[in-house]
Amino acid sequence: MRVLVPFDARDPKTRLAPVLDGAQRRAFADATLADVLETLAAAGHEPTVLATAPVDCEAPVAVDERPLTPAVNAALTGSELPVAVVMADLALLTEATLERLMEPDAEVVAAPGVGGGTNALVVRHPEFRVDYHGVSFRDHCERARACGASLATVDSFRLAADIDEPSDLVELLLHGEGRARQWLLGAGFELVERDDRAIARRQDETG
Amino acid sequence: MRVLVPFDARDPKTRLAPVLDGAQRRAFADATLADVLETLAAAGHEPTVLATAPVDCEAPVAVDERPLTPAVNAALTGSELPVAVVMADLALLTEATLERLMEPDAEVVAAPGVGGGTNALVVRHPEFRVDYHGVSFRDHCERARACGASLATVDSFRLAADIDEPSDLVELLLHGEGRARQWLLGAGFELVERDDRAIARRQDETG
Repeated sequence: MRVLVPFDARDPKTRLAPVLDGAQRRAFADATLADVLETLAAAGHEPTVLATAPVDCEAPVAVDERPLTPAVNAALTGSELPVAVVMADLALLTEATLERLMEPDAEVVAAPGVGGGTNALVVRHPEFRVDYHGVSFRDHCERARACGASLATVDSFRLAADIDEPSDLVELLLHGEGRARQWLLGAGFELVERDDRAIARRQDETG
Repeated sequence: MRVLVPFDARDPKTRLAPVLDGAQRRAFADATLADVLETLAAAGHEPTVLATAPVDCEAPVAVDERPLTPAVNAALTGSELPVAVVMADLALLTEATLERLMEPDAEVVAAPGVGGGTNALVVRHPEFRVDYHGVSFRDHCERARACGASLATVDSFRLAADIDEPSDLVELLLHGEGRARQWLLGAGFELVERDDRAIARRQDETG
């Protein structure tokens, strides 16, 4: 399937600023993007990176400087269907997860992110357009109904767990398998148990 | 399938203390337990609540005052297999999710929680015992291998999303369907959009 992979090539992963500086965030985002592209290609899909600036990666890149919503909608307009939209920060993505995303025979398939975002979509209806502002998962479900499209949702932790905040790094250390996890380990992060919960900590930190 | 549902009947959901007082946490925990029991029964399973004190609910209750790990292991010992262990705070549980948990033909089936816990298990191997301390999902996978049991994991957001902390309430308001969500709405919680993210807030709060 054709897959759009939106990527913020300018200032990615700003919510990781408490633990990573700008250059580190960019390197981490690049590693995550590489993981997502590799998984998509291994599963036989055709990813195109939809980036806000040129980016060096193993897939064709379409540069669109606009915010996420208008950039994705411009790419959807006139595109051959189906098209999937898979976020570049899904560091836990596997081929099996992609299979579950692509499998439902519905005109819109949506996978929620933690906190109400939409981390993956499959669009088979020509009138469906995205709106990533706010609680977009709920909005995308309503938009599918509004344009008469059949709707399926995908219940997947690997699709829900985008790596946005320092606390999300735990999931990547625990369940990741690719470059992004290796990058984190190389940067000195490790999983430690604290009060019966896991936290991701740099080896030079105490506490 | 026989299903153990461990439930802290004494001081449940302590990490919700910033937003709910003791009586409210207990009422909320009871509503969530009722949802979990109803979903299990609707799917044809036989839940037993494994509680730290007597509790009034729609299932048989076995009282064991010990901590979670020894209480579950005592219940596993000598029990007819298979047995599932499903946490009482899985407020997003659905029959379809349970089907995915019960489906794999493996001697141990484990579903991770956010942060590395183990939110659901199916045990078909007589030597497997639990240890919920720390990063238990990783430990349970290792324990399954150590006793020679075949292992499957379940990739489900609905099984991963236990409602432990105030920020988790967003998921319940967005994706819940039962009494726990109704209880939250009745207590004045609502979903609001803030800086492109959803938060759960009481209607009398500002900010």
